[in-house]
Order: sequence, then C-alpha cells, then structure tokens
Amino acid sequence: MNTSSPSATYLGVPAASLDDPRSFSGADVVILGAPFDGGTSHRPGTRLGPHAIRTSDYLEYGGGRPSFLVSVDPFTELRVVDAGDVFMPPGDIEAALHRLEETVVAVAATEAVPVVLGGDHSIALPDVTGVARGVGFGRVAVLHFDAHADTADSQFGSAYGHSTSMRRLVESGAVRGDRLLQIGLRGYWPGSEVLAWMSAQGVRTFDMARVVRHGLDDCLDEAFAIASRDVDGVFLSVDVDVVDPGMAPGTGTPEPGGLTSRELLHAVRRCALELPVLGMDVVELSPPFDGPGEITAILANRIVLECLAGIAARRAGDPAGR
Amino acid sequence: MNTSSPSATYLGVPAASLDDPRSFSGADVVILGAPFDGGTSHRPGTRLGPHAIRTSDYLEYGGGRPSFLVSVDPFTELRVVDAGDVFMPPGDIEAALHRLEETVVAVAATEAVPVVLGGDHSIALPDVTGVARGVGFGRVAVLHFDAHADTADSQFGSAYGHSTSMRRLVESGAVRGDRLLQIGLRGYWPGSEVLAWMSAQGVRTFDMARVVRHGLDDCLDEAFAIASRDVDGVFLSVDVDVVDPGMAPGTGTPEPGGLTSRELLHAVRRCALELPVLGMDVVELSPPFDGPGEITAILANRIVLECLAGIAARRAGDPAGR
Amino acid sequence: MNTSSPSATYLGVPAASLDDPRSFSGADVVILGAPFDGGTSHRPGTRLGPHAIRTSDYLEYGGGRPSFLVSVDPFTELRVVDAGDVFMPPGDIEAALHRLEETVVAVAATEAVPVVLGGDHSIALPDVTGVARGVGFGRVAVLHFDAHADTADSQFGSAYGHSTSMRRLVESGAVRGDRLLQIGLRGYWPGSEVLAWMSAQGVRTFDMARVVRHGLDDCLDEAFAIASRDVDGVFLSVDVDVVDPGMAPGTGTPEPGGLTSRELLHAVRRCALELPVLGMDVVELSPPFDGPGEITAILANRIVLECLAGIAARRAGDPAGR
Amino acid sequence: MNTSSPSATYLGVPAASLDDPRSFSGADVVILGAPFDGGTSHRPGTRLGPHAIRTSDYLEYGGGRPSFLVSVDPFTELRVVDAGDVFMPPGDIEAALHRLEETVVAVAATEAVPVVLGGDHSIALPDVTGVARGVGFGRVAVLHFDAHADTADSQFGSAYGHSTSMRRLVESGAVRGDRLLQIGLRGYWPGSEVLAWMSAQGVRTFDMARVVRHGLDDCLDEAFAIASRDVDGVFLSVDVDVVDPGMAPGTGTPEPGGLTSRELLHAVRRCALELPVLGMDVVELSPPFDGPGEITAILANRIVLECLAGIAARRAGDPAGR
Amino acid sequence: MNTSSPSATYLGVPAASLDDPRSFSGADVVILGAPFDGGTSHRPGTRLGPHAIRTSDYLEYGGGRPSFLVSVDPFTELRVVDAGDVFMPPGDIEAALHRLEETVVAVAATEAVPVVLGGDHSIALPDVTGVARGVGFGRVAVLHFDAHADTADSQFGSAYGHSTSMRRLVESGAVRGDRLLQIGLRGYWPGSEVLAWMSAQGVRTFDMARVVRHGLDDCLDEAFAIASRDVDGVFLSVDVDVVDPGMAPGTGTPEPGGLTSRELLHAVRRCALELPVLGMDVVELSPPFDGPGEITAILANRIVLECLAGIAARRAGDPAGR
Amino acid sequence: MNTSSPSATYLGVPAASLDDPRSFSGADVVILGAPFDGGTSHRPGTRLGPHAIRTSDYLEYGGGRPSFLVSVDPFTELRVVDAGDVFMPPGDIEAALHRLEETVVAVAATEAVPVVLGGDHSIALPDVTGVARGVGFGRVAVLHFDAHADTADSQFGSAYGHSTSMRRLVESGAVRGDRLLQIGLRGYWPGSEVLAWMSAQGVRTFDMARVVRHGLDDCLDEAFAIASRDVDGVFLSVDVDVVDPGMAPGTGTPEPGGLTSRELLHAVRRCALELPVLGMDVVELSPPFDGPGEITAILANRIVLECLAGIAARRAGDPAGR
Repeated sequence: MNTSSPSATYLGVPAASLDDPRSFSGADVVILGAPFDGGTSHRPGTRLGPHAIRTSDYLEYGGGRPSFLVSVDPFTELRVVDAGDVFMPPGDIEAALHRLEETVVAVAATEAVPVVLGGDHSIALPDVTGVARGVGFGRVAVLHFDAHADTADSQFGSAYGHSTSMRRLVESGAVRGDRLLQIGLRGYWPGSEVLAWMSAQGVRTFDMARVVRHGLDDCLDEAFAIASRDVDGVFLSVDVDVVDPGMAPGTGTPEPGGLTSRELLHAVRRCALELPVLGMDVVELSPPFDGPGEITAILANRIVLECLAGIAARRAGDPAGR
Repeated sequence: MNTSSPSATYLGVPAASLDDPRSFSGADVVILGAPFDGGTSHRPGTRLGPHAIRTSDYLEYGGGRPSFLVSVDPFTELRVVDAGDVFMPPGDIEAALHRLEETVVAVAATEAVPVVLGGDHSIALPDVTGVARGVGFGRVAVLHFDAHADTADSQFGSAYGHSTSMRRLVESGAVRGDRLLQIGLRGYWPGSEVLAWMSAQGVRTFDMARVVRHGLDDCLDEAFAIASRDVDGVFLSVDVDVVDPGMAPGTGTPEPGGLTSRELLHAVRRCALELPVLGMDVVELSPPFDGPGEITAILANRIVLECLAGIAARRAGDPAGR
Repeated sequence: MNTSSPSATYLGVPAASLDDPRSFSGADVVILGAPFDGGTSHRPGTRLGPHAIRTSDYLEYGGGRPSFLVSVDPFTELRVVDAGDVFMPPGDIEAALHRLEETVVAVAATEAVPVVLGGDHSIALPDVTGVARGVGFGRVAVLHFDAHADTADSQFGSAYGHSTSMRRLVESGAVRGDRLLQIGLRGYWPGSEVLAWMSAQGVRTFDMARVVRHGLDDCLDEAFAIASRDVDGVFLSVDVDVVDPGMAPGTGTPEPGGLTSRELLHAVRRCALELPVLGMDVVELSPPFDGPGEITAILANRIVLECLAGIAARRAGDPAGR
Repeated sequence: MNTSSPSATYLGVPAASLDDPRSFSGADVVILGAPFDGGTSHRPGTRLGPHAIRTSDYLEYGGGRPSFLVSVDPFTELRVVDAGDVFMPPGDIEAALHRLEETVVAVAATEAVPVVLGGDHSIALPDVTGVARGVGFGRVAVLHFDAHADTADSQFGSAYGHSTSMRRLVESGAVRGDRLLQIGLRGYWPGSEVLAWMSAQGVRTFDMARVVRHGLDDCLDEAFAIASRDVDGVFLSVDVDVVDPGMAPGTGTPEPGGLTSRELLHAVRRCALELPVLGMDVVELSPPFDGPGEITAILANRIVLECLAGIAARRAGDPAGR
Repeated sequence: MNTSSPSATYLGVPAASLDDPRSFSGADVVILGAPFDGGTSHRPGTRLGPHAIRTSDYLEYGGGRPSFLVSVDPFTELRVVDAGDVFMPPGDIEAALHRLEETVVAVAATEAVPVVLGGDHSIALPDVTGVARGVGFGRVAVLHFDAHADTADSQFGSAYGHSTSMRRLVESGAVRGDRLLQIGLRGYWPGSEVLAWMSAQGVRTFDMARVVRHGLDDCLDEAFAIASRDVDGVFLSVDVDVVDPGMAPGTGTPEPGGLTSRELLHAVRRCALELPVLGMDVVELSPPFDGPGEITAILANRIVLECLAGIAARRAGDPAGR
Repeated sequence: MNTSSPSATYLGVPAASLDDPRSFSGADVVILGAPFDGGTSHRPGTRLGPHAIRTSDYLEYGGGRPSFLVSVDPFTELRVVDAGDVFMPPGDIEAALHRLEETVVAVAATEAVPVVLGGDHSIALPDVTGVARGVGFGRVAVLHFDAHADTADSQFGSAYGHSTSMRRLVESGAVRGDRLLQIGLRGYWPGSEVLAWMSAQGVRTFDMARVVRHGLDDCLDEAFAIASRDVDGVFLSVDVDVVDPGMAPGTGTPEPGGLTSRELLHAVRRCALELPVLGMDVVELSPPFDGPGEITAILANRIVLECLAGIAARRAGDPAGR
C-alpha cells in the first residue's frame, strides 16, 4: 500500500470511512481502492492504480459529470461515496485479499454497489466472493473482460495471484462455471489442461476471433442472455488489458489484438444499462508503463464512470440509454 | 509565444511575412502559427504545437508530397506559403486573439485559404471570425471535429477560452447555429443549460454513439448536405482530441472513446474533396504529453496535409479523388 | 551490431549457431537477428530491434505458447531454433546485406523457414533473395505489409536502403513484379516516376483506401489468390509501420492512417494458415521511440508468434485454424 | 488554473480556506498555490507545479517529517496550514498577479509566513510585494536563487512576466536594489543595458563562477551579512533552475552549469536557520519535462521542507542547527 | 518473480545453478538475483532490478572488463559465476526472504563472496544473516550506504520490509549495533524513538551534513577503522538511493541531497580495496522510473563491477589500487 | 543523414552553403553538422544530434548571447555562420568520413575555425585531420574530453568507428602521440595491448581518479602547458559522455563516475580563453535517450557556446575572462 498518496476521492465524490460503516450507509455506490500488486506475474505498478484512476480527469474535481451519450449525470442520480484504500500489505497476499473481502462484504451488506479500483486481478477473488457472500453463492454472474482467462490452478506455487482468481471463484462455488462469461480472450495461454478444466465447468468464452467474426454486439447479446438466467445480478470485472496495448499501454501483461477503447466503453455502458450490476472492479492499471499522456489511467477512470452512468440511467428508468 | 523556435515553415514550403502582405499575395494557402495555450483549462503545451506540426515528418523537408490515396501533390497544384507565427502574448488572451483575428482577415482578403496551426481551441473564435469577416457573417459553415462542444458560456470567468469559442461564434452571428456541425462528441460535458442553448440555436451534433450506430460516412453525408446549403463554404476546425487518446495522447483534455486516426484522416479528406474549404485550423496538440514517438504531432501534420491534398484534388477537377 | 546484448533467443527457444549449420539441421524454423539501421532514412534504432522482439513477452521464457485463437502450440508442433544475430557492421551496408543473404541461403538450404528479425527494411533484399536462391528466382511471391512501397530507385545515392529493397528484388528477378503484393500503403510517397515503374512491373497494391472500402478480408482473398499462382510459396515481409503509429509508435518513418494491431495479426494468421510460407521478416521496430509500455516491441513479438502458430496449424492439417 | 486537481494539501498539513481568513489565523506558515504559467517565455507547465510540489514524497501523507540533519520536525514546532490554490486565470496575467498579491497581503497580515508554490517566476512580484506591503517597502531583502537575473524591462511587450519580476520589485521600491541578492546566475543573458541598470541599482550578484571560485559558503556569508542590515527580514525566492538541469530537468528555461541539489538544500537550510524568513516562494517547476522519476518535483518539495525545518529550528532556539 | 526475463548472467559471466551447488564450487564470487518488491513502501519495480543490473552495459557481453582506474580485470583475477534468480514469490515476503537466506548460506558455505542483486532493501536481512551464519553472528560489519537508516520497528504491521532490515539484523545479533555503519543518511525520517534505539545500540551514522563538512574520505577512514576491529570482514550494502535522485532517478523512495555517482563509486572502490568483503548487495533499483537513458541501471551495474575490481586488486596484492 | 530536419542554423546564426565556399569567406567560425551514427558500437541516435544541438535553447532564436560569466557576446565579437549538414550516408562510413574531411579542409582553408556538431566520435578522425591538413601534420594538439580513450585498433573489423578515431589520428601523424591529451577517462576499457600502444605513443591521460585527487584545474594546467609546446594550436574534441550519465543521459555508451556539467563547461571555457583553438567538435549526443527535459542536448548546445564565448573573449584581448 502506498500511504504517501493524498487521500483524494474518485473525481471528488464525498469521502466515507471504512472504519465507520455508517459513513457510507445510504450510499448507492461505494468506491474502494485496492492498491496491490503482490499478485502480478510480470511488470508491477498496480499498487499505484487506485490513486491514478481516481484523479485522471480534466474536468472539475468535485463537479458533475453529465454523460453526453447517456444523458444522465451519475452524481446527480446516485449517491456515490469513496471509502478510500483498503490496507493491503504488499508482501502478504493472503492477508491482503482477506481484508479486501471483509471490506466488500461490509459494503455489500449496506445494499450499495461496491466498485473496487485495482490493483492486480488477484483482487477479483475477494471482490466477487464478497458480493456473493451477500446474495448467495452461485447467485451472481461474472462478466469478465480480459485478454486472459485467469483460470490457472496455481501461480508461483500459490493458490492466489492474478492468473488464478477466476478458477478460485468457480471452485468455491461463489460463481457457477456456466455463469463466468469471458470476453476478449486471446494470446498464448492457457494450455490444454486448463482449457479442459474450463470446458468441464461450462465457462463461456468469447475470444477476439469470435468478437471480430460475429461482432461485439452479438457476443454481448449472447453473454447478457446467459447472465440474466438464474442469478440475481452480475459482477463486472474489467481488466484494462482487454483493450489492445496499442491504446492501453499502462498495464503489466499486455497482449496485442484486443478491443479498442471505444468498444470497451460501449460494452461497459450496455452492461450497466441492461443488467443489474451488483459490483464492479477495474484492474491491472499500472501507471509507470503508461507514458506521459496517462491514457490508460484516463481510460480506467472512464470505465468506472461509464458504468456509473449506465447504472444511473437504468435506475432512472431508461434501460436503453437515451 | 515561444520565440526560441527556429523559423521552420510547414514541411519546408516557402516563407511569407505577416509584416508584408505582398509576400503571400497569389498564394492559394497561407499557413499561420498560433502558439498559444492561454485558453486551455487543463494540461498546457499547445504553445509548442505549431513548431511540432510544421516539422513532424520523415520525408524530405522542402520536397514534394504526392498523395498515394488521392493521387495529387498539393505542393504542385497549390501555391502554399507559411507566414510564420502570430505574436500571441501568453498572459493576455484578448490581445492575443485579437491579433490572430486581424491576421486571418488579412490573409482571407487575398483569397488565400488560411490554415491555422494551434494552439488551444480558443483560437477558433478569431480563425472563423476572420474568415467570416471576408465572406460575410453567417456565410460560412463550421465542420467541427472534437470530443467537446466548446459551447460554454464562460471559462474561468472570462468570455474567452477553449471551451467557449463555438458559443461566441454563434452569438456574434459569424456562424449560424444551424451551420455549426459537431462530429465526435462524447464524454461528460456539458450540462443541461448548455445543451439547451445548443438545441435552441439548432446546433447539429453527431456524437460518437451516433457515429458508431450509423457509420461515419452516413454522418458525414448528412453533415455535408447541411454544410452545402445557404453558405459560401466551410471552415474545418479539427481538435486532435476527437481522436481516441489511445492513438492521440499528446493533448490537454483527452476523452476516451473517439475516432481512430484513420477515420479522422478519411473524414478530413472527404471534406476537402467534397466541399469548398474557406479556412482550417488544427488545434490542441500538446507535444509534452505525446511521448517519444511523437505520434500526435505526426497525426496533426497529416491532418493538414490531407486537407491540402483534398483541396488540390478538388481544384484539379477531381472532386471524388482518384 | 550491438554486441552488448545478452544472447537471448526468441522466447527462449533453443539456440543454434550460425557457425555450425548442423546445429540447426532438422529445424522447421530458424530465427535470425539482423541488428541493422544503416539503411534507414530517418529515426534510427532498428539495430536494437532483434533483442527487443526476442524478449518482449510476459509469459515464461522458454515455456510453451499455446495459441488461444488457433488452438496449437507452435513450439510443440514445430522445431524452432534461434541462430542469433548476423554480424552486420553498421557503417557498411553492402557488406552487411551480403552477410545476411549468405546466412539466409544457408538456412533455406536446410529446408527450414528463415524468420528474420530486423533491422530496417533494407534487409528484405537479402532475406527474399536468399530464399529465392533456394527455390528459384521468380518462384516466391512476396506479401508485403507496409505503409510504403519501398520501390525507390536509389536512396542517399546508393542502391541499398530501406526504401529501395522491393525495387531491387523485382529488378534482379528474384521476385516477379506481379507477385509483389503490397498491403497497407498510404501517405505521401512515391512520385509519378516510381509509380509508373511499379505499374509497368505489374506490382499489385492494396492501399488503405481500398482496405477500408472493400474490407481487409476481401483484399487478402484477392492477394492470396494471386500469391498462389505459378509460385512455390510466399515470403511474408511485415513492416511494423503498416500499423497506425497511434498503436505502433516505435518505428522510424511513421505514417498515420494504418491498420490496427488486431487487423495485422489477423492478416498474418490468415497468411500463414492459407499459404505455404517459405520465409518471413519483421522489420522497422525502433525501441527508443516506443515509450515505457514497449507496445510496438510486444506487437512485433506477436507478429512472429502468430505466423509460427499459423504455420504450425497448417502443418497439423488445420488450414483454416480451429 | 487546473481545477481538475484534487485539493491535496502540502504533505497533508491541515487545510485552510482563502475565503475564510480565520481558518489560518494562528498559523505560523501558510502554504499557497500559484498554478500559473502565463508569464513564462519558453516551455510551459508550471501551472501544474503546485500540485506536484504538494504531493511528491514517499513518506506518509499527513505524518511527521523529523529532519535528520536539523533534528527538528517542522510540523511539530510550527503550525503549518495550506490554503489551497489562488485562482489565477491563465490568459490574464495582470488579474492573476493582482489576485495573488491580495492573498499574500491577507496572509502576511496574520503574521504567518506565506510560502507560495509556483507557478512561473512572474509570481515573485506579487509574492514579495505582498510581504513588503506588510513590513514596509524597502524593509525586506530578497535572497534570489536563480540561473537568471529576471531584471528585464519588459517581456513580450508587457511589464509582467517571469523575466521582469525582480526589476519591478526594485522599481516600485518594494525592495531596495542593494538588498536584492542573486545567487547562481550564469548563461547568456542579459545584455549590457540591463546589466547597467542592475549595477546602477546596486543589485548584488553571486554568479556561478564566483560560487566555484570562492565557495558557496563564503558567498552565503557575504550575502547574509548584507541581508541582515537595515531590513526586517528576508524573502527567499528559489527558482529550481538554479540547480543544474542535469539534476533538475523539470523546468522551462534550463541553463547548464548550476548548483547541485545538495548545495541548494544546504543554502536554503542555512538561510532559514540564520535569517528571519518573512516569506518564500519556489518557482519554475514544470512537471511535464521532469521524466518518470519526478526528481525535480521531489526536489521542490524538499526545498520547501528544508526551509520549514530551518525556520522551526531557529524558533526552537537553535540558530545553527544541531 | 519475473519468469519472463531471459536467463542472462551478469555481464555474461558463466552461469551456475542454484539447484546444483557444485556448479559454483571453486567460484570466488557468486552473483544472485533477488527479484522482489514485496517489501517496498512506495514506488514498486525493484523486482525488475536484477535483470537490468545484469545487462545494462555497452561493452561486449561476455568479454573482459579491465578497470581503467584500478588496472585489473576482475574477470581475469576472479572466478565469477551467476547462479540466477532466487525464486521469491511477490506476495509472501516471509517465504521469499527465507529462500534467499538459505541460498546465501549455501553460497557462503563454499567460501565464495555472495553478491546479491536486488530487489528492495528488505533483502539485506537474509543477505547479511546468510553471511553471518557462516562466519558467526557478530563477526561481520555492515557498511551501509543509504539515504535511510532502515531501522524501523515494523512496516505495515509486519516485521519485514525495506525499512526494518537493519533493525532486525542488530536485534538478532547477526550484526553488532556498533558495527552497523551508515553513510549518506538524510531527509525526514526516522522519529525520535527510532533514533533513540539506534543510539542505544551504538549504530554509527555518517549523515550527508557530516559528509559535506568533513569530506567523504575522512568519513570513510573513520568508518573503515571501526569496521576493521573485532570482526572477520564486512558486508557492503548499497542502496542506490544514497546517490542524489538527480543522478539516480530509478528508485522507489528518492531523497534529494545525496552523494554523486562519482563519490559512491569512489567509496565502493575504497571499501573493496581496503577491507575484506564477505558479501555485497545492491538494492532499490526500480527500472520503470529510470527514464530512457537507463542511467540508474547502468550505475547499479558499475557499483557491482567497481566492487569486483576492488576485490580483485586486493587479492592481487594491491590494496591501494594502482 | 536525416533530410527531414528543417534547415535550422545554430541558434539562428546566418546560413552559409557548403556548395559555395564564398558564402563563408570572412567568417571567424563555421558550424558544420555531421549527422552520423554509423560508427557507434551501441545505442544509435547521434545522427539526430546536430539538429538538437542547434535548436536546444530557450533564448531568442537569432538573437544575441551575452555571456554572464565571460562578459562578451560571441555573436557580436565573432562572425559565426552555419554551413549546414555534411551529407553522410549512414551505411557507408568511409565515404561519409571522407566527405566530412574534405569539408573541414575547405573551411579551415578560409582561416575560419570549424566547429563540427556530431554525430558519433568516429568523426574526430576527419575533423582533426582536416584541420591538420591546413596547419600541418603534428602541428595541432588535441584536448580530448571523454570517458573513453578511443584508441582501439579496429571496431567490428573496420579501421573506422567511434572507438578507433584517436588511434588513427596518431598513426597517420596528424597528431603527435604526446600531444593527444585525454581528460575524464574511466570505466572498463581498454585492455593491456591498447594501453601499451598508448603508452608507447606518449599519449597523456588524466583519468577521473586523477581529476578527483589533484583537482580539475591542476590537470588542466598541466594539459594546457603540454598543449602549448611545439604546436600551432589545439583541437577541442568533447564527447558528452565525459559528463556523468546522471547529468547527461542522452548518449550511446554512458559510463558513470564522470565530470559534472559545471566542471566541463568550466574546462571548455578555460581552454578557449587560454589556448588558440583551431577547431572543435561536440560528439555523441543521442537525443532519443535524453528524456523529456532534453538536458543533454541543452548541455551540448552550451558546450559550443561556451567555447565560442571563450574564443571571443580571447580575441577581445581578455585571455582570463573578466
């Protein structure tokens, strides 16, 4: 954890305190920071992600954010608060993930939607588990945008890490294998054993070849249909590396051939407009590799905002946007 | 103004002098630099834009530029000169914009097309006003490529700034509200009051959701049709932030979800081939945020060149390109 | 040549020695490094390309690379070795290219597919000539992905350079003019004399306007059909600047308006799946202009891997991929 | 002004409000931000300086800062508050400087030491004038660390700018010419007319040749002796470009051959320990030119902290440090 | 641990295997990599340090390195091997440090000098403990070059971390408090409790104020005299942040006001020439913050080489260098 | 050669033409660009050096440059012209160096002082030879500031390269071995054979250990005394890597432990004030490795300017400066 960051909140929304759950009672959305890179297998830096996601914008800090495309201001429609960073010791992944899970449980218990700013993708395990502990194991579908399946059996000899989180979620029963919906996969991983496990669990993948051939909207239609059956809602887990590294260089395990930023924002918007979002995380932003334009940080900021706008529009009775 | 830059001309075209209007008489196109960032609301640096736009190319400085896609060399078909930088004191926006307007008027009076290299988007006010003072208020349509509408009522308490220029143009009558055609809008601005003003003026917006749903060419068809009615020509105002920051990081107020570079160059080419261009500006390039590849500077250089090639092809009697 | 680089092999495949041809006998693919920028006309740095292409990946060095999209691990299906860098003195282009040609001839003589990691595009002359010396002049088609035609008559007064390589190949008869298939061309070069020469030779170009209008797959269909007639196979020459500089900044002569990374990887995959690849080079990666995310290096690494996966799938009897 | 920055205070000290002077009554030191680059003549970016100075540290935000070298924690000895940024419209330098002067007057009226985080060096005019309006014109000496004399008669035709501030101060009488003490001068400016004016006013310069020949401590001894006569205290104005650009690249007008960071921190420490500091500014930090290590921002942060530690030690009765 | 790095050895020295201790029997020096940043409190990236230290040089990889200043080639005089990286899981600091300690013990048991390439400074605990387990607790002095004392009682609630390593070493008895010699300290840490503990243990500090006042050589004379009494040799622990961040930006907790690179290399050379070095580590290099020149990585490479040259000259019977 | 650079002159001095020697007749100093990196052994980029040296300044382009430390404006005292870049084909080092030598001969024949902006250090061979062809072989001493001796017998199997230039000069008799004075050497090259050759030729080296021990001024005193005997003047050859890479990162073969920028500028100033300078080159600036602050380019610009100021002061009858 980087305690030297000033305690800025996401775009200047009111602060809440993790130590005082009453401070976020009544909130519709609670932002949490998970400044952790103890679970990454390659370039570190995601511990600096939450601060960058919170502050990478050019509009007035603390002001409104009326969406041009969805015609709603999420900060008008929703009560959004930021409860700051969870304390996650970098050298103790089990303790770190445990603390995060307890925090997500506490937030979810208030009926607020937890939005977790990563951090590497190992945090999806506590993020989704925390939500599932509220609505019930097996009652939340996961919409997983990523270049990678994150279904390894172990990483560096440990059960925990950014490449194992989705496996652990299915194994524990927090998420049904056939309600794990992966969009954007590509590259040169995993091998046949892991693929066999995924297939046996009924994990549904929409890889980039499929996205190109069928169109992103068709893939989303199909995924959303599955994600609407026999669950109470969805958790949206967005790894910024689902976007092509040519447009999102600030990440640890970049794999060429991905979505454009525009496609991802479109997909996130549709998800939040069309499905009941119970929780969200945005992960794998690594600012040191982002370059002076800070484009990946800005993109990550907008992934969150686009989701909030969609939730706001949906609650305002406009499930299709304007 | 950065007086420490060497006085390079755009791609090495002949130099003209703002102090001696005869030096550009007979020119078809006069390039002007507007090295100004006193009107930006966030990351500065556009005062360094004109020099970067002029020199960011890998081909021979001072040589020809035969377009592969349009089959014409703009420097053969057109007499293009570069009159250097307008003196724009950074700390006095009113004086700076006034000087620029007078210069554009002087250029337009010679029947040459002024092409202004920005600088932040506050310069669109003098750029378009200068042209309108030649052809008549209300007689020029504006094709405005941008992530932002630039229709704020005021910025930092001032009437001038990069977020107010389009409003001032409509208010003054230089441009009819229904001939302000905005392409590429998105993001989280403006609020309802400004939107109401835009609507009342008949401003026509083609936001990114519309571009994606209908296709860019359909949007351009519709915009070009409007831009051809009851005016004498168009002013093409290109904010590089209309391109997704993933492909154009070197700018001050980047908003994800935009056009690709390829789409923008295509749109600029079509505009110059199909419509009578009376003036152009390329704005908001901020070199310090561009990274070592200087890709946004190179893009801005090509936006100008693509427009010149289109003008050349149109004049050569080839309105559709090859 | 940069002798200060450690002798890493491509992704950790076994090393072979150029001094001992037996060390790569039996190999299906032999990787060669061509660390040379003596032929570039603008930003240097491609001499640092081979090391960057070999090592820019986040997966285990020396491990497998099972392709998610093609369902094959090239390192399981193919025996791939890396014979290291050819010695190419930076200040003597003739000697450097001669050495490379002799090395490619030696590799091709073993029936292995040479894959040459550039280096600037001047190396295409020895790369393709070396292959043609094996299968016969005129018996290899060239699929040339590039922003530029590389058909200049001379560069800096010399016959050799990155802008003349394709001309020399046709002039020598190594490649028939009508089997030189260029995809992705754009920008402001060459002039009419060079275009006339290209036309006279029957060079077939698919420029970016055509790619956009007809679709990339239609262009590839047409190109592949030509490349299948009256030749024994194809040489795939990929200049990373065929990709838009917005997504591939690390190169010397960037020209906006190109392919996306995703499109290029798709095209390379199709080529390797559908046509008999006799050789390949990946050129013009210049690491110093790539920025901290190293995205162009990673892309170049994947261009090679995507080709290897396609070759593997084709040999495994799956010409259409999964 | 960059309103998109979160309202972080310097190292987490308590916030005060410029709108409510009572909020800083009783404070020993009041930090002010002057986010302005409308007065720079070359590379912009100093408007981003205050936020960078406030937050560039690795120690706990809001924690103590016990000085290892001076054996005092300034945040224990002194009541330090941060009153945030003065509103300084970038395109109106006169209005911007006027606002800043009024603010400094208000702070100085409370007996607190104003510490202004720039911003370009044009702000020294309001900073020092504001203090002088409190103690009386001619009653404050200026210790001016800089590569440049900042004594031009005009800049871009204006009386205001970063190269004219020291001249204006002497001309107005706020500072006596013979109590303007300039340390670190070098380079290729100004010309003989300006030098003659400086000489006529009795301005005392310690240029880098003198610093090298006589030693920094001897120069400081001499300067401090002058600064102790016939005035009530000193204003310490530190331009980060006094440090060699090799160690402080993040600035707008870098001039090689300067102090080391270590020498500057030593000089600042001595100044605060040995003289009554009535005010301070740290100027010309331009984050976009600083590189990924952010070393100039960190240095600027420490210049402030070293001064605070010196003031604290002096007040604690330890004028020589430990 | 970053398994995606190619297994390059330090400057191309022969490889040894940690799994086969016989592979380094007979070696005079064994290089080890400790790719770990789980113990850092701020900017991460030191897990990428070992690879950067090994390969950042411009001279022939695998060639000789005759020292110009010491007139000896360490690779001629000494048998140096590189045993590769210790497996250090990023999310389990206890296990990671334990593995490193066992490895250092195994190396030290062969009489070879272990040289550990960090990694953050938490590794000094296993590095020195490993050596002390060989020669006996209390029998090794530590020459500790650093901006920070690293004597905190705990970090993030844990006994382990880069700010606690020196405390743990003294507490365990591995190092006597009065044989911990710290050079280069400065900045704003620690507080009085920690200082009291240091004083009680007899820790000897040579802070930067003392280095400046007395001269570096005098400080070294005094430190070396202490380090020669009642111990069997010294461990040299060099944190690159002892150098001023202006010359060594690529680190996680930069503190201005430090040594120059030249001074540090001089001190390291003297240490190795004048004292029996039993072990060494070079820590806190964080490549992502180093910038395109990679100057901190190159410095870290030379710190190791300067030590090896000193050891070689000492063994060659030339304790004072040439 | 980079023909895409605009034809800016050094700081805006008048242009001359290499094709028309009359254009520089009467000049005191003729600037030449040598945009070449075909002779470097590691990181390329020096072909971009001349343009960067010419334009890296913040003062008015084309204005005066009154030296603060030497009290003279070189552009008032001296007639300085810039004859542009010599055509140096990157892939043909022999032809490139030959062209440069002929050009230097032509300049020296006019009695002007040639100042050559490199380019890598291979250009010292033609630079000094060209001057020696004017005054006579053996009649010019070389003051060689460098981290490296550049006395290799061959590089990459060639007689030419940046590591062989000083050897060739002595072998040809252009420079007497005992009038080659090398200052700043350090690092890990060359080996004993080369050292023996140097010793046999009487080459005099002042390495960094000596500079530190004796002081820079003592070394300069001794070197200048030798350089004043039995020759007609000196050639000043400054490799920017003589400065510590911590302050001059933008170079190809950086070696830690060097001079500070301040020391180098002092030495250059003394040289030009105290000795008759017959020619000068500044070499090894590689802009791609310089970072956003461009500090090495700015330093190289000042090395030239400091020399010009010294020459001007000497001619103005002030051999000791003010």
